[in-house]
Amino acid sequence: MTATAPPVTVRRAGPEDAATVLALVREIAAHEGDVADVASDLPTWTAMLGRPEVLVLLAERDGAAVGFVSAVRRLHLWLGADVLGLDDLFVRDGHRDAGIGRLLMAELGALAAAEGLVVRWEAREDNTAAHRLYRRLGATQRTKAVFVWRPLPPRS
Amino acid sequence: MTATAPPVTVRRAGPEDAATVLALVREIAAHEGDVADVASDLPTWTAMLGRPEVLVLLAERDGAAVGFVSAVRRLHLWLGADVLGLDDLFVRDGHRDAGIGRLLMAELGALAAAEGLVVRWEAREDNTAAHRLYRRLGATQRTKAVFVWRPLPPRS
Repeated sequence: MTATAPPVTVRRAGPEDAATVLALVREIAAHEGDVADVASDLPTWTAMLGRPEVLVLLAERDGAAVGFVSAVRRLHLWLGADVLGLDDLFVRDGHRDAGIGRLLMAELGALAAAEGLVVRWEAREDNTAAHRLYRRLGATQRTKAVFVWRPLPPRS
Repeated sequence: MTATAPPVTVRRAGPEDAATVLALVREIAAHEGDVADVASDLPTWTAMLGRPEVLVLLAERDGAAVGFVSAVRRLHLWLGADVLGLDDLFVRDGHRDAGIGRLLMAELGALAAAEGLVVRWEAREDNTAAHRLYRRLGATQRTKAVFVWRPLPPRS
């Protein structure tokens, strides 16, 4: 990044940003090798971005999206209170290593702090560069076994 | 378990079961060494057990609670649909190794399957007995880094 690079701004995405957000989600999925895992489409994102519990922040440079962070507010039973479950943090190729990820996390953290919300998320075990960023923010890291189960209906 | 042990039944907990559920949650927290992590109290549980997205199943023998499973239905952005986020599966000391955990998971799975919901959860990395149960159900297992962050308000 040179000193003349235009500044990066961050704003909350709304339903009108659905196509941009969906494109970014498909990019991160392709980046992680699982684009088929994205089942949400444009109408779904238009609806989701209008829901109060959905928080997507877009990083833009010269009006073009260069990254995003997404999160869903949800109930945490042990706390008896909501937490913010972070889903994706992604910066587009060509814009990495310029502090945009940190900027997105700082903005998300400020919004969470304003409401007293804890933020929780999972990351790939081998993404050590991201782990460093998260620990520098002050997040605690643990290793967990994560299970995904699509139960079959009982046979009749 | 002998052939004369009374049968175990499973039912969905409601607000009137808040004290029972809170006692079980505190037991699992103590079992995992972190009873201070339970910030929810009786009024909180009474309210949470009345919310449609909260699903707690109680296993009972002779009318006494012997275990439970808890889950919260929540939006998953990549799927563009809800998933069931499992929080706790717990069987009381003295009732373990009798198939009660499997019975609770089977009931939870049947409810999830009826609505086409994927179930997701995290487990301690060293709880290999639980991992075996989950894999036998058909769940896929991955190892993830899990982050928890309580962001501080920006200094003014």
